Amino acid sequence: MSNAKTANRLIYLPLGGAGEIGMNAYVYGYGPAGKERLIVVDLGVTFPDMDGTPGVDLILPDISWLIARRNQIDGIFITHAHEDHVGAVGHCWQQLGAPVYARPFTANIARRKLEEHGGSPNVVKVVDPYPHVISCGPFKVSYLPISHSIPESAGLLIDTPDGRLVHTGDFKIDENPVVGDPWNAALWEEVAKPGVKALICDSTNVFSENEGRSESTLAPAITEMMQAATGMVVATTFASNVARLQTLATAAKAAGRSVVLLGRAMRAMVDAAQKEGLLIDFPAVISVEDALSVPRQNLMLLVTGSQGERRAASAQLAQGSYLGMKLKEGDTFLFSSKTIPGNERGVIKIMNQLSELGVDVVDDAGGKYHVSGHANRPDLVRMHQIIKAQVLIPMHGEHRHLREHAKLAEASGMTGIVAVNGMMLDLSGNRPKVAEYIETGRTYLDGSVQVGALDGVVRDRIRMALNGHMIVTLIIDEEGDMLGDPWVEIMGLPEVGRNAVPLVDVVEEDLAQFIGRAHAKTLADDDKLEKEIKMIARKSAQGEIGKKPEVTVIISRLA
Amino acid sequence: MSNAKTANRLIYLPLGGAGEIGMNAYVYGYGPAGKERLIVVDLGVTFPDMDGTPGVDLILPDISWLIARRNQIDGIFITHAHEDHVGAVGHCWQQLGAPVYARPFTANIARRKLEEHGGSPNVVKVVDPYPHVISCGPFKVSYLPISHSIPESAGLLIDTPDGRLVHTGDFKIDENPVVGDPWNAALWEEVAKPGVKALICDSTNVFSENEGRSESTLAPAITEMMQAATGMVVATTFASNVARLQTLATAAKAAGRSVVLLGRAMRAMVDAAQKEGLLIDFPAVISVEDALSVPRQNLMLLVTGSQGERRAASAQLAQGSYLGMKLKEGDTFLFSSKTIPGNERGVIKIMNQLSELGVDVVDDAGGKYHVSGHANRPDLVRMHQIIKAQVLIPMHGEHRHLREHAKLAEASGMTGIVAVNGMMLDLSGNRPKVAEYIETGRTYLDGSVQVGALDGVVRDRIRMALNGHMIVTLIIDEEGDMLGDPWVEIMGLPEVGRNAVPLVDVVEEDLAQFIGRAHAKTLADDDKLEKEIKMIARKSAQGEIGKKPEVTVIISRLA
Repeated sequence: MSNAKTANRLIYLPLGGAGEIGMNAYVYGYGPAGKERLIVVDLGVTFPDMDGTPGVDLILPDISWLIARRNQIDGIFITHAHEDHVGAVGHCWQQLGAPVYARPFTANIARRKLEEHGGSPNVVKVVDPYPHVISCGPFKVSYLPISHSIPESAGLLIDTPDGRLVHTGDFKIDENPVVGDPWNAALWEEVAKPGVKALICDSTNVFSENEGRSESTLAPAITEMMQAATGMVVATTFASNVARLQTLATAAKAAGRSVVLLGRAMRAMVDAAQKEGLLIDFPAVISVEDALSVPRQNLMLLVTGSQGERRAASAQLAQGSYLGMKLKEGDTFLFSSKTIPGNERGVIKIMNQLSELGVDVVDDAGGKYHVSGHANRPDLVRMHQIIKAQVLIPMHGEHRHLREHAKLAEASGMTGIVAVNGMMLDLSGNRPKVAEYIETGRTYLDGSVQVGALDGVVRDRIRMALNGHMIVTLIIDEEGDMLGDPWVEIMGLPEVGRNAVPLVDVVEEDLAQFIGRAHAKTLADDDKLEKEIKMIARKSAQGEIGKKPEVTVIISRLA
Repeated sequence: MSNAKTANRLIYLPLGGAGEIGMNAYVYGYGPAGKERLIVVDLGVTFPDMDGTPGVDLILPDISWLIARRNQIDGIFITHAHEDHVGAVGHCWQQLGAPVYARPFTANIARRKLEEHGGSPNVVKVVDPYPHVISCGPFKVSYLPISHSIPESAGLLIDTPDGRLVHTGDFKIDENPVVGDPWNAALWEEVAKPGVKALICDSTNVFSENEGRSESTLAPAITEMMQAATGMVVATTFASNVARLQTLATAAKAAGRSVVLLGRAMRAMVDAAQKEGLLIDFPAVISVEDALSVPRQNLMLLVTGSQGERRAASAQLAQGSYLGMKLKEGDTFLFSSKTIPGNERGVIKIMNQLSELGVDVVDDAGGKYHVSGHANRPDLVRMHQIIKAQVLIPMHGEHRHLREHAKLAEASGMTGIVAVNGMMLDLSGNRPKVAEYIETGRTYLDGSVQVGALDGVVRDRIRMALNGHMIVTLIIDEEGDMLGDPWVEIMGLPEVGRNAVPLVDVVEEDLAQFIGRAHAKTLADDDKLEKEIKMIARKSAQGEIGKKPEVTVIISRLA
């Protein structure tokens, strides 16, 4: 009996979110090694950028490990409705097949995603919060309401045969979050009482030294700003930040401004929040058509695109107009948001376009118009102190955040352990240890196709972007002789190089010379011929334009 | 006489730097419209990025307007040795041909650049500062020493037949800049006395609300940090920030650490500064080979790559090793720098790699280890108040900086006027007015070739990066019939689409069907054939992979 019991193990395996901000996906398991029953916490996405993932539409966690263990999965628990926690549910569910648990608002969003991908909304089970318990294989899971920047966020209480785990999800400590559950210290104290084996805890803001501020502190400054503005006011924030939408809309109303929603995500989110009864006294929204006849000092546009997204409402307004709405001198544009690192260029571009239109831009430089949705360093310490777990496992953060969070835990006497994506921890016994390293990574949604990050597709795109592309075509006749000369086409390369003659002429000449010298044996061997031609074409281009392009060789053999 | 005089005009024309941070290039002219004698102030570069300029090596101002007026140019004045002020001198000088004026340290750097491009270093004239006057056509120019983040920075006093101009160059107000000229209020007051027509003034930090801090305030914190660190210390900053190099090296010495310079730019800059006698008591530098036998707690590496540049010393150290130097647990890495917007991804990547190595990263989050080299808002006001010019023309800044700076000037009773790149101001008379709009832009240095920003080369690269590239080849025989079937190759596209068969097979099949149906007339017309094939290939790919690639069609006609 005791042997059988020691054969079981309790594991934690992050597949996304541990070593990055975004794409959260965590696995807990219990059972004999390799045969654990599994639950998944969150299935999020992250977003592509031109630097590393040009042309990609969305980045999903690589869930091959889970797919191979599909029959071991008992449930998928979504903590809240942000894209980096729920965004991959639609794309991945068919491959996993387990029931999805979520609180009502999150379930609403998850169901929309399943439907978009032809899945059934019925796989999503709406759950009540703690003390309600969901029995799921060897796990008993309860949703612990917590404040964050989207309604109905929750941490998870996970009771296992080997002890109690607390997974915070994303959170902040906010006793007055405007919309959604306030921070409830008593709840977390109660949960901590029986003793907690491990606290798996949000790490994104571990470098923010000051205590976090409440969402409710923003209303006075925002209202004042909207009252003082003389022209139209445009405000942008994440559409999912429902509390902020409420704050902005209430301020608009107080300033005698009608609210217009611009951008698909903005309208969808207000719609979902209203359906779930989360917005209270949200002022009536007017249509764009109606807005065109309202004086601009009586309008507040609530728009998507706070991160400078190219096709969002903000970007289009900055370029001149969106659905007939135009900005002009004297209008005010409020970024009620923080620019996520990496998005600066896009945001700054919009700010400059607005400046050219004579629009005054107000951003969060002074901290008056935005607060973070995540726990800062002192708030993390408070959570540590309440939960008093034996072990702190930092989750959701880049490596530097996880490491700093583990150090913070060690400083207050806990064991802190950094586990990055793919590092499976065995939490059985008194000290967690690394059980295995799982091959993990990212899957790119590219158009309608899922592509592995290591398939080379995106690597080739980056190479073409950096080096340009040269195509060499050759026709070889039935006798194995060249028919005509090699033909060169270029894309993304200068047409004329240092000799003031067309680049393609120079390369064609060099290739023709090579062919003239080449043995029949070389001409007969496609691989060898291709290799030689690439080398000559690259060298020739290097001499002419100082750059070695990507070369594709197309050999047509007439048969 | 008075008629002749009114026919002359005084013009200001920014060709770079006004509407962006970087790539400074300003023109002043005096004379009859269209026949003004011209001087150029600064010829700087800016740096490419993957978002907008993949594969480009350097971005230069488009100086076609100047080239067309080469005979009207009397001189090129370089204010200081930063790349965004001097970086294009080597690339552009041959096309302009006028003497280049600079203070000794700047001249040293400018000469190196000319030599790299086969120019003669003799075209650079070393100048003494004010009260020395350089007569240059109708202009009398004096160099006004000012504090900035590189030695021997200067503003320019430009006396014209139509009044006095003051061009600040980049500057800060620092009475103790460690290296280089201290701020000298008396000098600027003296210059202002006769009355100044226009102040052309640095704008980059107009949104920074607090008075700027002196370079000298950093030494105590940096020294303390280096003394407290137990392992090796690595510090990075812009190589050109000679004062910071001095501060870091002095702190290292005080902490019993030998200094090692890593990175070509770092060694070159220390070399130039020493040759010009700018570094005082700079500790002896040891070689990497010698460093390998020094205990790590006695080392401080001063390295390039503070902006996350991919191939710089910082990036290589973060990846494991550079010239045999390796970082490990317990070492400290100091970013004594600010991350320029747009470079965040690269810098954060390095920070996370260092975190994985167990290296403690110290950055400027608290403002203890870096100060800006530019005048903040209150410092700009101080400059305005000293110069008391009739007109303030903001220069060096994005549109939002220029606009804010002009508003700031207006608030204190000056006339502020925003002139962006290509907007020529006529400063004659009492109110400046826009004289002309000049077509202006950017020139890309791509490998060894200069490419116009609008030539489409880079646009094609971006398209290939976003959409992938498909190449279709057709061979048409002497009779005008297809020889075999169309052949498709792909680069940067998924090999298999939704039908689980190769993408190229699907597209080839669709193209073969089209060819089978096509009239002889279509097959005979290359343009028409190409257009149709592109359309079908894109549509076919869209159906299969949800993406429309760039398509190159190559038609070979056997003759």
